[in-house]
Amino acid sequence: MALLVQKFGGTSVGTPERIAAVADRIEKHAKAGDRLVIVVSAMSGETNRLMGLTNQFGAHLSEKHRDLVLSTGEQVTVGLLCLALEARGIEAQGFLGWQVPILTDQAHGKARIQNIDASALESALEAQKVCVIAGFQGVTEKRDVSTLGRGGSDTSAVALAAAIGADECQIYTDVDGVYTTDPRVEPKARKLSSITFEEMLEMASLGSKILQIRSVEFAGKYKVPLRVLSSFSDGEGTLISLDNEVTSMEQPLVSGIAFNRDEAKVTIRGVPDIPGAAYAILGPVADANIDVDMIIQNIAHDRTTDFTFTVHRNDFDATIAILQERATQLGAQSVDGTCDICKVSIVGVGMRSHTGVASTMFKSLSDEGINIQLISTSEIKVSVVINEKYLELAVRALHGAFQLDQPPKDHQRPRAIAPENVDKS
Amino acid sequence: MALLVQKFGGTSVGTPERIAAVADRIEKHAKAGDRLVIVVSAMSGETNRLMGLTNQFGAHLSEKHRDLVLSTGEQVTVGLLCLALEARGIEAQGFLGWQVPILTDQAHGKARIQNIDASALESALEAQKVCVIAGFQGVTEKRDVSTLGRGGSDTSAVALAAAIGADECQIYTDVDGVYTTDPRVEPKARKLSSITFEEMLEMASLGSKILQIRSVEFAGKYKVPLRVLSSFSDGEGTLISLDNEVTSMEQPLVSGIAFNRDEAKVTIRGVPDIPGAAYAILGPVADANIDVDMIIQNIAHDRTTDFTFTVHRNDFDATIAILQERATQLGAQSVDGTCDICKVSIVGVGMRSHTGVASTMFKSLSDEGINIQLISTSEIKVSVVINEKYLELAVRALHGAFQLDQPPKDHQRPRAIAPENVDKS
Repeated sequence: MALLVQKFGGTSVGTPERIAAVADRIEKHAKAGDRLVIVVSAMSGETNRLMGLTNQFGAHLSEKHRDLVLSTGEQVTVGLLCLALEARGIEAQGFLGWQVPILTDQAHGKARIQNIDASALESALEAQKVCVIAGFQGVTEKRDVSTLGRGGSDTSAVALAAAIGADECQIYTDVDGVYTTDPRVEPKARKLSSITFEEMLEMASLGSKILQIRSVEFAGKYKVPLRVLSSFSDGEGTLISLDNEVTSMEQPLVSGIAFNRDEAKVTIRGVPDIPGAAYAILGPVADANIDVDMIIQNIAHDRTTDFTFTVHRNDFDATIAILQERATQLGAQSVDGTCDICKVSIVGVGMRSHTGVASTMFKSLSDEGINIQLISTSEIKVSVVINEKYLELAVRALHGAFQLDQPPKDHQRPRAIAPENVDKS
Repeated sequence: MALLVQKFGGTSVGTPERIAAVADRIEKHAKAGDRLVIVVSAMSGETNRLMGLTNQFGAHLSEKHRDLVLSTGEQVTVGLLCLALEARGIEAQGFLGWQVPILTDQAHGKARIQNIDASALESALEAQKVCVIAGFQGVTEKRDVSTLGRGGSDTSAVALAAAIGADECQIYTDVDGVYTTDPRVEPKARKLSSITFEEMLEMASLGSKILQIRSVEFAGKYKVPLRVLSSFSDGEGTLISLDNEVTSMEQPLVSGIAFNRDEAKVTIRGVPDIPGAAYAILGPVADANIDVDMIIQNIAHDRTTDFTFTVHRNDFDATIAILQERATQLGAQSVDGTCDICKVSIVGVGMRSHTGVASTMFKSLSDEGINIQLISTSEIKVSVVINEKYLELAVRALHGAFQLDQPPKDHQRPRAIAPENVDKS
């Protein structure tokens, strides 16, 4: 008898048959007495098809017009799922962004949710209806249709869960939970029954594609319990836990290994070591709307220093061009870079209270003969940049080194509590 | 410098290239200073694709949910056309049904327009924007998306033209005007420069698919001048004239030949000739939501009579089943019918003032050895039902008999007016 938001992604609703399977799943919950708000994505491939249509008319055109086209993908799924539910005798009410309404700012194509008026949803829930809501879309103050950007349906789901005070926001996807690392790279990867928000946030920002990072931030901010589950099989999935304390009783040092192949590395060498050098280099990069990930500046030699940073591979050429112009102006020595890298990260809140985690990582890579090109750390993660060809080797080595194939030991459990009285969620 | 509503149908916007061609056409009008409200259909094939998706979940499901799906076709075209216009430096504003708003009743799937608030459109026109509006859709008082039924975009266009007081409502399609008959059947068919509303209404209801009948009714009711043009070529198209008097000066006896292959004929024989018999037969047919077209009851013999009527072929089996039940209850003799028929009609306001038109028709068919099964007449049309195999032969014979391949003679023109002073629109 819970109040649940359930979000079904593109592959979960990819065909009429899969939409029917989603309806079966919803039927079970509805018959068990749960009150349900369902958020759906476009059928898989549909957003790309629509994007392809809009691209026929040229680049740099209004995102507002594009949003009108892109938002139809989710709308189709809403209608189809409502039909599938009706065919099962379940009363459903479909909601587009403007019908809820989900108010966003006017940054079309990557709008941010500003407010959700939950009253229409609450009336529908009161009337025993299943609410089926188009993810990824909202409406601006000017009554224009907006979209939240790629993966925005997760954000829609979390925001709706916060707005209606849902007991849980369940993200149904094509994987059955969050794993210690990608099982396609390390077959021994183990599904986590829970993970903290901070860890999930790091995992998402480091390349795990299970949840969109904005949705995790949102869930953390509004304290919405999130759960990742498979729409293709049964199981409890992975709970993204609000309560760091309880979870950390069972917390291992490292919860997971994330990696990212999308980055490129650029270096500008022999930059005069004067105040303002970093801004002079990175300012124009930011102005070109290029996101910079890791930034490394080492100590100076001979009054010059080297800057290295990573950007998305798509931005590599543009970044090199900007740096070459800056190098001339700053009197720097040279600019170079490569796309032939990857980033591998270990993540875990357990690092906070344990030393030696980074050195275990470095030793493990060294044992495999893998050279580390860059290192960057935060409170709960250590990331290294290595040659891309070592990615799988590195992931498997680290997975083994931190014993992630084993269930976590209760290394911090207070002795006074008997194991059978502890909630093992 | 006119205020125009221009509607582009599915084939006119069937591909990104065609949408670009529509944008070129709009650009010319915009640069000539016309104020433009553009109404678009879904890209051709799209509505069928969406309909196919909804049909996967079973028949007899809520039209409300289906409307959410079907209405996305036009939405995509609106966004794409806005992008194409923007790429040409023309500022465009897209409007979905709810954004205008176009208020409809709640008969989802075949909703009727109740009111259009033109103020948002007028503000956009004031700001020198081209308004691009999704045809076929509206919004109900309950804020649900509704659709107007097949071909509803024509109705949207006419209703919008009435709401903003447009100088003309131009329906761009894949034919370059209204012809004396279908040129695929009679290659000598001639394009009409104008036709009266009444004639167009008869042509539409008798099977000419150029304009949706509701849109013609609407245009007549609200006195919106309608023009049918080709989006693939230049030309004046056919004006559907409001002013019967002016037009009829050049009016021939017959303006066109319409035909329809979609009908079936059913007969119930030996019905006791008592008051209420017609209602007893046709009441249950109407209750089953079956549209009846021609109804023929001849004089009684031996105190019984025969009823014959035509229905859409899709309704043939259901109609036969209903009649068989009624035949038993009424003590009628037998029920039979056939789908092997077609209806051919001659249409012209000139018939009002001229006798002998029907007999010319019957003679022409007789000369070709075509047997007439049913006859039905109205003030400005004569329809006959014949065996379907004679359709082309009959159309060509009638087209020749009424000299429709020749431009009309000024047979009613008052002598006092010199030809060069007559407006030939």
